[in-house]
Parts: sequence; structure tokens; C-alpha cells
Amino acid sequence: MSGNKQLTIGLFGFGVVGEGLYKVLQQTPSLNGEIRKVCIKHPDKQRNAPQELFTTDKDELLQDESINVIVEVIDDADAAFDIVKTALLNGKSVVSASKKMIAEHLPELLQLQQETGLPFLYESAACASIPVIRNLEEYYDNDLLHSIKAIVNGSTNFILTKIFEDKLEFATALKLAQDLGFAESNPKLDVEGYDAVNKWTFLLTHAYGIVTGTNEILFSGIQNIQLGDAKVAREKGYEIKLVAQAKKLSDGKVAAVVLPQFIAQQDPLTFVKNEYNGVVIESGFADKQFFYGKGAGSFPTASAVLSDISALRYDYKYEYKKLYHHQPAQLSSDFYLRVYISATDWAQLPKQELEWIEEWHSGQDRSYLGAVIHYSRLRNSDWWKQPGVSLILAPEAIIEPAELEKLRPVKSVAALETAEA
Amino acid sequence: MSGNKQLTIGLFGFGVVGEGLYKVLQQTPSLNGEIRKVCIKHPDKQRNAPQELFTTDKDELLQDESINVIVEVIDDADAAFDIVKTALLNGKSVVSASKKMIAEHLPELLQLQQETGLPFLYESAACASIPVIRNLEEYYDNDLLHSIKAIVNGSTNFILTKIFEDKLEFATALKLAQDLGFAESNPKLDVEGYDAVNKWTFLLTHAYGIVTGTNEILFSGIQNIQLGDAKVAREKGYEIKLVAQAKKLSDGKVAAVVLPQFIAQQDPLTFVKNEYNGVVIESGFADKQFFYGKGAGSFPTASAVLSDISALRYDYKYEYKKLYHHQPAQLSSDFYLRVYISATDWAQLPKQELEWIEEWHSGQDRSYLGAVIHYSRLRNSDWWKQPGVSLILAPEAIIEPAELEKLRPVKSVAALETAEA
Repeated sequence: MSGNKQLTIGLFGFGVVGEGLYKVLQQTPSLNGEIRKVCIKHPDKQRNAPQELFTTDKDELLQDESINVIVEVIDDADAAFDIVKTALLNGKSVVSASKKMIAEHLPELLQLQQETGLPFLYESAACASIPVIRNLEEYYDNDLLHSIKAIVNGSTNFILTKIFEDKLEFATALKLAQDLGFAESNPKLDVEGYDAVNKWTFLLTHAYGIVTGTNEILFSGIQNIQLGDAKVAREKGYEIKLVAQAKKLSDGKVAAVVLPQFIAQQDPLTFVKNEYNGVVIESGFADKQFFYGKGAGSFPTASAVLSDISALRYDYKYEYKKLYHHQPAQLSSDFYLRVYISATDWAQLPKQELEWIEEWHSGQDRSYLGAVIHYSRLRNSDWWKQPGVSLILAPEAIIEPAELEKLRPVKSVAALETAEA
Repeated sequence: MSGNKQLTIGLFGFGVVGEGLYKVLQQTPSLNGEIRKVCIKHPDKQRNAPQELFTTDKDELLQDESINVIVEVIDDADAAFDIVKTALLNGKSVVSASKKMIAEHLPELLQLQQETGLPFLYESAACASIPVIRNLEEYYDNDLLHSIKAIVNGSTNFILTKIFEDKLEFATALKLAQDLGFAESNPKLDVEGYDAVNKWTFLLTHAYGIVTGTNEILFSGIQNIQLGDAKVAREKGYEIKLVAQAKKLSDGKVAAVVLPQFIAQQDPLTFVKNEYNGVVIESGFADKQFFYGKGAGSFPTASAVLSDISALRYDYKYEYKKLYHHQPAQLSSDFYLRVYISATDWAQLPKQELEWIEEWHSGQDRSYLGAVIHYSRLRNSDWWKQPGVSLILAPEAIIEPAELEKLRPVKSVAALETAEA
């Protein structure tokens, strides 16, 4: 094994994460890492580091042969990709925290790694401080991974916790999250599920060898969740979380969705409150593991970046074993989902698209039903994304085609028609 | 990086773990592993595998040059050490599940690994299915690990859960654990903390580079926990768990103990019920991570053994970075502990050994007090191990010497004398 390599780092970005890294590296000589140069966008900002460390010229880092590691913790996905690409092609190892960039450029990034043979690490890009990528790569590295489900977005989990525990309306909870710095001023990326599905794309690569894009995954955020949905969840003994999940079906394909879900009390994900993230992995001999930690914020991100830097001392790199050494899995589009749908108006509920209805409830303000629907029906329509409609998965929502008829109720629930009449 | 190596395995032991491994390896060709021979003790037992697979002669495995991996999942610690030693010296990689053997022979095992350069993996020996060793080695591989605390023994955790939730007396809970197969017929190893401290010795090596023996660590089990202690815990909003913990002090040394502890509701360890294990790691930028999974039983053990076998395909080995590449830490004997002590009789409580008493309560059947005591006072005495006395750590029990005076109460609690009078 290689020794304890000296790392000379070029850092892109000097926000809270970048500055935190700079401080820790200074104070921790055993890490064998020194930041040679920092590339920033705004040279006039006051920085807590010597002036000569900074530049606005990225080539001072990317073309410096004494720099062997590029760390990029910037916000701009397009700029980040250029930096990563140039760095790898210039023979430098790279650590990145840009989930959006990785999700959007995964095939190119995989090719760049193969071409250059250089490490490209990004543990902080998913679940921040939780070592989920490292564990999928190294510990769950065989094809015995049955399922993985995770809360990967801290902002939405914070909002859902407030809706659920403090009975706040969505807008109030969102405002609170923004005030506390857990949600962006433009929260669309978090709230509408884009951030979660970005992370899910490359976690699917490490979990199952699947290389896909966000447009291939059924997803939504929590923008349509109502206080009334939280009330129903509570009555049923559930909480609501935005869950990214994937499950290997009996045909070897993988069902993957990112949707709000009812979570039962005994599920480890109920433990995940506020800005935390959590991952439940079911593997091998049908056993469950749970990983939990802070998923958002500068310190958890910096902590994961630091572990990646540390791993570079030993030339660690992802091997994408399930992609390159096993038969990579494919996404399935043939499975069913058990869902809860609530709407302001019965007319919004497409009864003809449902396999069957298991329960329904009609109230003054809102109506809801529990039903089973084919994945493709959701994938190919958007009635469930309309204002006024909430779609929430039931616990254990994924149903294999072969299981469907066994689960079909003997007596159909037909009262919906009456209620409409 | 090395490729997907063919593993030819010699297996010692064909109990539930061994048989499970055999089946999974047969069904999973991508693991590239084939069991060539199985060494068993009792040739007359009916086995679910071809007769010619078995032998009672260990040399048929250890001297077979075509076998490149030895997996040992046997019960006998002394025999296990002989097998591991011979296997490494004969050029074979080794996977072991024998925590007692590893704890007892750690220095020799470290030397054998250095001499031979061969992998010796034992993830299943601590927290079974939770990849705690792998994460301490690879992810928390720098010297920024502030603390680690863990529930590492599933049997005692099962018993404590039953005492706590079902209000069973210790003996009844133990009987139940035995009936359900969560505790051995001779439960001393689990119940008196030997199993937990065994695991803790080598986890300290991976966490802090400490190489020590069980006799150097202050530990006890749960044998003296009373139903009354559970009642007090409940009143205070706590649960009781057997916790192995280590914390880096400001002088760089590490405080490490394995003792029952009051656990507050917001602590992730409260989530760990029954036969599960859990690990809370505090690192780097002061963030907490929590790992949770099944800690006892054949399937979780087999699952971890399988991941070790899988890692051998890529020549993975522990590098013991904190021992060899950093300044290894030392155990501290200079710190204080905040404790709860209950006793049938006040006379059993050594008031003169306590720094101060924070609360006391005298009842009909039992009395208890909350106090602060120096670690060495416990280390060098055994009054707290006597029948009738329970010692339980308070939450956040470890106090640095420099913190002591700041915490000393202005008004001392002197009523104990009166109560005795």
C-alpha cells in the first residue's frame, strides 16, 4: 500500500466550508496537507487568511505542477465541472462537493476517471457527513444489496419536522428554515426534490452500478404536502419524510423513486429529525443497517471533504465495482406503488389510473384515498404534481408485478362513486 | 488497483454462520469465492453440503497451497489463534470472527500482519453487521476523532431493554434472552462485560492507535443493575445501556471505560433496542454520526464475514493508520467520572472516595446518590462490583481534570451523614 503522501492543495471557494478546511489543515500537521493557493470570485472580501494565498485566476491552481490535489467547494455547477475536468486532465486528484454538477455530468466524470486513472472523490456531495458513498463502495461492494432508502436532503427534512411536530403550515415552516439558514432564499432546488434526486443519481451508481440522469427517476419534493396530510399521518401512527429509495426486484432490475413517504414508528428513518440525514441499507443476509448524521451545513460538509482529502494520502479512489466488475443493474419501469393521495377536489383524483382503492375519506376541506398504482402511470402523468394534490407513498410502497394479484383486495372499495354523486 | 481476485477458501466451522456463508457463496458467482474445504470438529453431525467437503484435519486447509483464504468462525479462542497464525505464516489471507481471540492476542496479530504483509480482517468481531472497523480505518482515519461510544453487546442490550420496557427483573430478563437465543447458557461473558471489553480493546486500536489489554480498561457488565435503577432512570428521563466509550482529552490521552450508563432521550443510543448495536462517533468538525444495525446473531455475523471476504478480492487490508502513521494515543488514568451509585445499604457507599455528592436519595429498599469520582478510585477498588451495589455512569460522564473545579457545587450535599445517623 502507498504511504502517507504529501498533499499540496489548490482550493476553489473560501466560504464557510473552504475557510474551515483551511483552518483544520493548518492545525493538523498529521494530515500532510497544505493549501498552496485559493481561487476566489470576489477578491475584495475580507478573508481570514494571508492575502498572498488568494487569486482570482483559476490557472494559477490548475496549471501549477506543484499542486497535486484540487478541492472545489463552489456553488456554480458549470464552473465546477470545468475545474474538475481540467484538474483531472492536468494530472491532479480532485475532491468535490458539487452534487448538482456530479449528477449532471456523471458519464463524463466516469470517463475522465477511467482515462486519467486519477481519484475523484465526492463523499460530501451526498448526506454530507455520513460516509454513504464510501460504505456502498467498500462495504456493500457485492451484489447482495437488497434495498437502500435515505433522507438525503436536510432542508426538506427540517421543514417536514416543523410541519409534523410544531404543526406549522408549509409556508411558515419554509420561512423558519430560511431564517435559520437551512434553506436557500430560492428554495426550489431543495423543496421540489431536485437536490434529492441529484444525489440519488450517483448514489444509484455506487449502490447498483446504474448510470442514469435525474429525468429517468420519478421524483417530487414536498411542495404540496399539507398540514392535513400530517394530520392523517399522525392518525395512522406515521410521520412524513422525503425518501429517496431503491429496491432490487426479483428480475434483477432496480425500482428507484424519490417521493414523500409515510414512515412507521419502528422505521429508523423516524429518528431523523430536522436537518439530519439518514440511510437505511438492507443487504446480504436480510439485515438492516442505519447510518445517521448531519446532512446539511458547512461543518458536516467540511468534515466529509476532509475525510476525502485524508483518503487521497493513500491514493484511495472509487472503483465503481458494481459498474465495472459486476453486471450493472438497470432501472425498472415495471412495478407498482402503494400510495396515499389527497386533494382539495375529488375530480383531481384519476380513479381510472389506479389498480384499486384500499380506503377513501372525504372531508369538508380535503379528501384522500389509499390506492395502488403502476409506476408508469405516475411517470407519464402530472396530475399528482398539480397544486392541491399530495402524493405520498405508503410504508413498504414498492410492489413487484408478481405480488400484485396476491395483494388485490377481495372486496373493492366502490364508495368513491357514491361520494361524488 | 488490483482486480477481482479469485478466492479459494478454507473454512473453519460449519455452524449457522459457516453454513450460511457456504450457501451465499454458492449462489453468488460474482463474489469469485469458492469454499474448497471445511474443517469441522464433529464429523458425525448431519451437514447440508457434500460429504467430501469436510475434514477434521486442519492441515488439509492450512497446508493446501491452492487455498488462499482462511475463514474461521469457530468458538474456541485458543484454537482460533493457532489457525490464524499458521494461516498467515503459510501465506494465506485470513477472515476471523473471534473477538475474544483478537482481544487476547492483538500485539501478536499486529506483528504477524506486519511480518507477512497479509490481510487479516475481522469486521464481524465487533458490532457484527455494522462496518465500524472499516469506517474507523478508512473514513475516520485522521486524528480528529473526538469520541466514540457504542453499544457493542447485543445480549446485554436485549436484557436491559426488557428490564426497562417490560419492567422485568434481571434474572427473568436473562432467562428470556437465553430462551430466545440472545444469550449463552453460560452468560457470564456477555453479562459481566467481558465480551464488550474484548471488542473495545481492538476498536480502540482502530479508533486511536491504542494497543492495550482488557485488564487495562475499567469495565463492568450489567449483573448488578436492579429494577429500582431502571425506575430511577425513568424518573430522570433516561434509559440504561451498557456503553463502551472513549474520549480524547485535552492532553491528547484517551479516557476509555465500558460501564452501564444513563442515556438521555435525545441520544441516538436510545434508539438501540433489544439485540441491536449502535455506534456514535464524534469527529472533526464536532459533528456526530450514528451507525446502527444488528449486533448479535448468525446472519449479521455472516454478513460482515462476507463483506470481509469480498474486500479480499481487492487485497484490502487494515493499515492501522493511527498506530503506524500517526502518533498513537495512550490511555489516560487521570480523569473524573460523574456516576450514579445505588446500594441496598448506605454502608456500602464509600463517601470518602467521592469528590462530591450532587444528590442523594434514601428509600425503604434502596438508597442512591449522584456523585463525581476520580477514575483511579474505581480502577483500584471493587466495592462497586459487590452484590447489592450498582454503578451507572451519568450522561456525559467523563470530566477532564481542568474542568473539575468549575463544576464543583458551591453548596455541598451533606445530608448523607444525617441520613445515616
